[in-house]
Formats: sequence, structure tokens, C-alpha cells
Amino acid sequence: MPTRTIEWTEDGIYLLDQTLLPQEERELLITRPAEMVDAIKRLAIRGAPAIGVAGAYGVALAAQLHPVGSPEFTDAVAALRSARPTAVNLARMVDRVADLAGDGPERMLAEANLIRDEELHSSVAMGELGADLVEELVGDKPIRVMTICNTGGLATVARGTALAVIQTLHERGRLEEALPLETRPLLQGSRLTTWELAQMGAPHRLIVDSAGPFLLSRGAADVVLIGSDRVAANGDTANKIGSFSLALGARHAGVPFIVVAPESTVDLDTPTGAIIEIEDRGRTEVISAHGTPLAPPETQAINPAFDVTPVDLITALVTERRVVRFDRNETLDSSNE
Amino acid sequence: MPTRTIEWTEDGIYLLDQTLLPQEERELLITRPAEMVDAIKRLAIRGAPAIGVAGAYGVALAAQLHPVGSPEFTDAVAALRSARPTAVNLARMVDRVADLAGDGPERMLAEANLIRDEELHSSVAMGELGADLVEELVGDKPIRVMTICNTGGLATVARGTALAVIQTLHERGRLEEALPLETRPLLQGSRLTTWELAQMGAPHRLIVDSAGPFLLSRGAADVVLIGSDRVAANGDTANKIGSFSLALGARHAGVPFIVVAPESTVDLDTPTGAIIEIEDRGRTEVISAHGTPLAPPETQAINPAFDVTPVDLITALVTERRVVRFDRNETLDSSNE
Repeated sequence: MPTRTIEWTEDGIYLLDQTLLPQEERELLITRPAEMVDAIKRLAIRGAPAIGVAGAYGVALAAQLHPVGSPEFTDAVAALRSARPTAVNLARMVDRVADLAGDGPERMLAEANLIRDEELHSSVAMGELGADLVEELVGDKPIRVMTICNTGGLATVARGTALAVIQTLHERGRLEEALPLETRPLLQGSRLTTWELAQMGAPHRLIVDSAGPFLLSRGAADVVLIGSDRVAANGDTANKIGSFSLALGARHAGVPFIVVAPESTVDLDTPTGAIIEIEDRGRTEVISAHGTPLAPPETQAINPAFDVTPVDLITALVTERRVVRFDRNETLDSSNE
Repeated sequence: MPTRTIEWTEDGIYLLDQTLLPQEERELLITRPAEMVDAIKRLAIRGAPAIGVAGAYGVALAAQLHPVGSPEFTDAVAALRSARPTAVNLARMVDRVADLAGDGPERMLAEANLIRDEELHSSVAMGELGADLVEELVGDKPIRVMTICNTGGLATVARGTALAVIQTLHERGRLEEALPLETRPLLQGSRLTTWELAQMGAPHRLIVDSAGPFLLSRGAADVVLIGSDRVAANGDTANKIGSFSLALGARHAGVPFIVVAPESTVDLDTPTGAIIEIEDRGRTEVISAHGTPLAPPETQAINPAFDVTPVDLITALVTERRVVRFDRNETLDSSNE
């Protein structure tokens, strides 16, 4: 990526403000933990792996500004930890750095850097494992992939999850076309995924979200690839709103539906998707798009940020170290043995 | 409706300019047939039944201004007839009034009024039959209805099709809440359906299209009601893109999925939905919303205006004179016998 998703520097933490893409590539300089909380909340940085790194750097920053154990430090860690409720990764990475508070700020920063490096290596591995699986399932023909939201380098520091698989297929010369969904309300697909696909030179056509299941029924794609914000112990998967209807469409069309997510996304403490809390992001995003009003101003809305796809609609989960074939009755436990 | 979709008066024909909704409620006063042609072409009035009535009034207006048989009259009829070439209803209603030219302008105006009254009565009948069916299926509790696109009085002179059922349920005191989908790319749900629901005082919350199937899976609605552009002989239904994924969601959740459309929508010459050609409306609508750019300007798109829901996902079709229970293996033919 020519522009950095997130980077720690002497001056502070640089973030690419993803709310302004693709119209503008502007960086934010974060110098206080509260600014990082705000950036996470308003989606200037987004995607479970990326906000995990952001949370880790946020704690490292807090440790440089405040004595560990002080109310300022404790409050900063708590605010970072809960900036986005659905993403288990954020809380986990915040804790991983905060747990080293006794070892001092330098050790904490080293841990945050390690988390960033792990994400990068993890993206490469997911891309390879996922592309192998897609080639095996689709067979020897040019591959058309449908996907939702933004799961590329912007969401994960580099390459990404589902989009890493698409990038790897493209690098192998196997990608005919990517079909990203626009992903209302915040349009991560039209704003960010198209931008990343264009950066990597991959052929693509954008579709509105509700066209995905229908186009699958008319044979427009060979596989669906999505990321995940949280995978429950039984394989149920929380991801961007619209993933569930794509899964229904893939099942109806007989097309493989593959989740690509790092091991850190797997939450064995959540037995099934039924108990995952769904964040409602309020009505403003729904009654407007990119700042333009779309509905009468007093209109109320339901705005679930995520949905939950039950494991019986998922062909496989690809992580950085394994493929779990739910369609062959493999489980997260059995595949770990 | 406190504001009229279309109305003949001494001063001319009043039209509500739907291109300005919901930001502005401005009426157009049409005093020449060419103004009506323009209003139809630029979608100031839209929806097959509504533009049928508009065409009929346009011919009646031409007959008051020009001697029948004059070049001015003949040209006006031809221009009205072809203002929207794909809408068969428009040509049919224009012809129905123009064929009475020998009987004089008063008789022609009476015919145009009759066409309007037929549409109104048809809407009332669909509302009653549909509400009866919904009450039967949902049982004795407050009813929550999910719907897509705009199927109300704006599209049909008054009350509409699926929205007529919602209005009737509301008038009977049975409606707890309507959940309209925003209906990308042209946002008829957020712009028009919310406005009509507010006008009738019906509680409602707007949702993005991809949230529909998931919210059904979480029990947010008791029934799905949609309109239709064409019903094939076997019951397969072409309607606004997004209807198919809602049908998949309704089936998964065990919620009734009901199509509400006049008999004129049933096309016995089309055996199944598989042969319905899907119009692609081009990329501009997808890469923008309400004139605001949403994606990199060079982005390509697939933009199917409609989808086709197979009859095995449809519980019933409600027209102005019957209910066809596909879930009980009734067919369009058998139910006619």
C-alpha cells in the first residue's frame, strides 16, 4: 500500500482517515489515547485486525503519557477496550499490551509492534491458504469472487483477510473478476474495496448489496469470501450486515461461502452466534449517505452494524494456520487436535 | 393523502413532483399535453398505474385544447403514448381514452376519471384482501411488516399495492410497525415509502436493504409484503432488486412472504421467471446516491433493476379480486377456475 493504514512514529500514531476515502487520502496524527478511541468509534480506522493494532498502540501511547496504575492510564485502557463492542480482537489486543504494564512502556510498545507484525504475516498466510482452498473448490477455470465490506490492507494493516485471498488469486493469475458489494450504510465496499482492488489492478464490478444473492442465483460468481469480526466456538460468524443474506444466496445457488479471519477472531468463550450482541449504530447513517440526506429528517431507523451467519451456511473457515471445513463436519475443536 | 398524486381540476392537472420528495412537496400544474409528456419522462410521476392515469388525463386535456383529428391532437396522443416506451399500461390507458375521440371531450374526461377510479378501487380491494390474509396468517397480535421499494399511492394514484395492505392494517389498528427497506440504488424506500408512511401516521423504522434478511432471522417482522412488476404464469415474480434476498430471508425465518399486485401484472405469456430479461440500468446509479459520488469515478458496476423470486419462496399472491395460496399448491390457473 502506498499509504499507511497505521504507523507508530516519534511524533505519534499516524492513521489514514478511512472516512474520507476514496475522495481524499488524509492522515490523522494521534497523540492522545482519547483521540484513538474517537478514531475507532467514528471508523477512521476499522476492520477487526486493524483496530486490534490501533488498540494496542493506543495502550502503548497511554503508557508513555501516564504512570501505569494511575486513573488516567486505567481509564484510557478501559475506553480503548470498549470503543467497539462487537470486535473481540480489540479487547484482546488491548489486554495483551496492558497486561505488560509492569514491564514498562518500552516493552509495551514492542508488544504492540509485534501484534502489527503478526497481523502482516497472518495476512500473507490467510491469502495462501484461502487461495489454495478456492482453487480446490472451484477447479480449473477463471475465478469470479463475490465479497462484502472492506477486508483488505485498510482493515488489517496489510493485504487483509478475504481481500488477501482475492489478491493472492490475482497474483496467481486465477482471478477473472471480483464483485464487491457496496456495503450500506457506510459503503466500505464502494469507497474502500474498489479503491484497494484498483490499487492492485484486479478487475472488479461494484454491485448494490441486495443484488448479491440474486446475481449468485444467476451464476455470476464461483465463490463468496467474507471476513469476520467474531467467530463463535461452534463456527457461527459475526460480520458486516449483509453477510447473512449473502450466505443464504450462496446456499441457494450452491456456491461455496468461505470466512477468512485470523485465529484471534475465534472466540471460544462465545458458544454460539445467538448470544453475540449486535451493535446498533443509530439512525443517522441510514437516513444519509456520505453526508447527503436520503430520507425525511425525522425518520427513525434500525441500524445493526453486524449480522450473524450460522455455521450451517458456511463452507469453511480459513485462518492463518488452518482450514476448518464445516461442510465436512469439522469443528474448531476437532481441527485443532 | 393530504397531497394529491394526480388530480384533474378546472385550472389544469395537478401533479406532485416526486423527483423533489422528500425534501420538498411541490405541485406541478399541467396545462398542455407536452408538459405531461415531460413530467412522465423525467419521473415527476412514476409507477405503472399512476402513469396510466396521467396518460389518460393527458389525452383528455388534448381533446379540450385541440379538435380531435387535428395534427395537434394526434401528435399529443402519440407523444403521451410513447413517453415511457416500456410501460405497457401507459399505452393501454392512452388508447382507451383516445378511442373515444368520436364521443367528444366530456366523454373522454369521464373515461379518464373512470380509469382513476378503477385504480383507486383496485387499491382498496388489494388492501382489504391482503390485510385479511395477513391477519389470518399472523393471528391475534400487533403486526410488524417488512417491505421494499415504493408501492403506495405515489405509484398508483392512491393507497397502492403492498403499501395499501399496510395502510389497511394501520386503519384497522393492527399495525405495530412497518420496516421499509431503503431500496438501493434509487432509494424509493427511504425517499418515498417513509414519506407515505409518515403521511398516514403509521409507525415505521427504515433499514438498509441487507439488514432485511438478518432482522427477519431475529424475529423483527411477522410478514413480508412486496409489489410486483410482472408475475409469470407459474407464479415466479419479478420485482425491485432485493426482493429475492428478502424472500430467502423470509423462508429461513419461517415468515410469510406475500406479493400484492393487480391482475394486470399477471403475464400468462411468460411461463416462468427464468426467461424474464433483467434490465441493467448502468453504473451511474450504483457509484452515486442522490447525486453524491460514492465510489472512485472510474468504477464499473452491475446494476440489475429487478430480480426474480421463484414461486416456491412465495406464500401467496394477492390481487384486487383473489388470493392465490402458492403455499397450498394453488396456481394462477386453478385459482381462476
